[in-house]
Amino acid sequence: MNGGCILAVGSVALDSVRTPFGSVKDALGGSATYFSASARFFSPVSLVAVVGEDFPKRYLERIRELGIRTEGLRVEKGRTFRWKGCYDYDLNTAKTLKTELNVFQSFKPVISRAQKNSRYVFLANIDPEIQLSVFRQMKNPRLTACDTMNYWIEHKKPVLKKLLKKVDIFLCNDSEARQLSSEFNLIQASRWIISCGPRLVVIKKGEHGVMCFSKDFIFLTPAYLLEKVFDPTGAGDTFAGGFIGYLSKTGRLDGGAVRQAVVYGSVLASYNVESFSLDRIAVLKSSQIQERYRQFKEMTRF
Amino acid sequence: MNGGCILAVGSVALDSVRTPFGSVKDALGGSATYFSASARFFSPVSLVAVVGEDFPKRYLERIRELGIRTEGLRVEKGRTFRWKGCYDYDLNTAKTLKTELNVFQSFKPVISRAQKNSRYVFLANIDPEIQLSVFRQMKNPRLTACDTMNYWIEHKKPVLKKLLKKVDIFLCNDSEARQLSSEFNLIQASRWIISCGPRLVVIKKGEHGVMCFSKDFIFLTPAYLLEKVFDPTGAGDTFAGGFIGYLSKTGRLDGGAVRQAVVYGSVLASYNVESFSLDRIAVLKSSQIQERYRQFKEMTRF
Repeated sequence: MNGGCILAVGSVALDSVRTPFGSVKDALGGSATYFSASARFFSPVSLVAVVGEDFPKRYLERIRELGIRTEGLRVEKGRTFRWKGCYDYDLNTAKTLKTELNVFQSFKPVISRAQKNSRYVFLANIDPEIQLSVFRQMKNPRLTACDTMNYWIEHKKPVLKKLLKKVDIFLCNDSEARQLSSEFNLIQASRWIISCGPRLVVIKKGEHGVMCFSKDFIFLTPAYLLEKVFDPTGAGDTFAGGFIGYLSKTGRLDGGAVRQAVVYGSVLASYNVESFSLDRIAVLKSSQIQERYRQFKEMTRF
Repeated sequence: MNGGCILAVGSVALDSVRTPFGSVKDALGGSATYFSASARFFSPVSLVAVVGEDFPKRYLERIRELGIRTEGLRVEKGRTFRWKGCYDYDLNTAKTLKTELNVFQSFKPVISRAQKNSRYVFLANIDPEIQLSVFRQMKNPRLTACDTMNYWIEHKKPVLKKLLKKVDIFLCNDSEARQLSSEFNLIQASRWIISCGPRLVVIKKGEHGVMCFSKDFIFLTPAYLLEKVFDPTGAGDTFAGGFIGYLSKTGRLDGGAVRQAVVYGSVLASYNVESFSLDRIAVLKSSQIQERYRQFKEMTRF
């Protein structure tokens, strides 16, 4: 079966970012925003998140103009979630300067009747208890995926382990895989995670590429090589958007589809880091995704 | 034309290494040793190096048993070059505890009449003035390649730039490429290096794989993924041995051959890091190289 609506639950944020190439204040960001802006190239996406009353109207319009469904985007009393961070020339590591949770602190996603039937679900990095609460509301999704972060591994590992039992695909970065599994070697780390439940573990290594593990295969790929990386904020969620988006479009979950999905995710992420905020992927064309997919193949074939 | 004798100039050393998995004292090591032990799978290799009177006979026999020609391995009065280093769990970075140059300090490679006709020349990491002196002695090599290290970039950059004018292939790691070119981005760094002379730049990133640049193409590959990495000492030179070895065997220098050579180099390096010293590649079979090459393809195809 082809196609499938994707439900994306996570943050919509105002990001203030400084990189060696410039800076931006209160730009449109957030894990669910980046994911949706990327996944929309493949399937319809419904966004579930919360913003404050200060959330700029033009950002709301921007999200809608991308074709993302915003019935699940609630506006609550208070200020929008804000993240302030910076990057040095080693763009692989973000330094968080400030996090203001604001309305996001009491985020309790309520999934509408229509959304409960979504076949594909992505739970971006939020409190694993909230991720679990979304699971409980879903009817019978074909594929579920989640991301997490070091904070939850440190403070809510038991809840995270419950979540792992339910989720099909677990995405994280290399240090999170190591921290979660207490294994330094990434094959062993992924084996540990798979033993907890997921059928697929996707380890994102930023500029060093992606590793994808299942019980049946391992797929390794470098990152698409760019001459100019402008701002890596959102790269991981943009990757997830391309990855889940492609899987939902093909309707397949076999090794071949998963490998191609990893490359599509990498292509989307490579475009995202070329600008601040969503500036680049907002104007991206499908033909450009295909073109870079071909270049990716050319850069890695042997 | 198929086949071609390889001349390997560099160090033969006694290494004392500590990793999280064990330690070894005065083990057989050195850049030219690792290179030769790897390249011998593809073409005959002549080793040019110097050792002290203390160099164990059994190591000399070991080198010869691998089929490496040792007419160019001189024994001089004094002690053999020694390196002492250790690795933490992050096996990507060696910490040098002690370097004793000993007889290597006055190493002046004299290339015999027969060796001057070698078609393939690899100059492992040594003083670039010595590397240049070897160039001057060669008749008409088909392909020349060299490696270097941060120390020479810092202290002998003008000589290194003279060397770059003459060499066909320049191999280095990512931080050396950045240091040499003063460019952080590796596309820009490689472009700078290519503008100095080499037609090919091969950037080794350890566990993160290899990037290969020419004027016509870029080839990226992850490293072969291992469950257990025991000791990364010599991985870079073992890579170079597989890389140059394969090129010498095919006799081709086109993009297709270069891509395959990078993968063969990665396969050889992956075997090397499974043990201390040359223990693993000394007993390696050609069929095992082919087998891992196939697995490499399987791990990276999409």
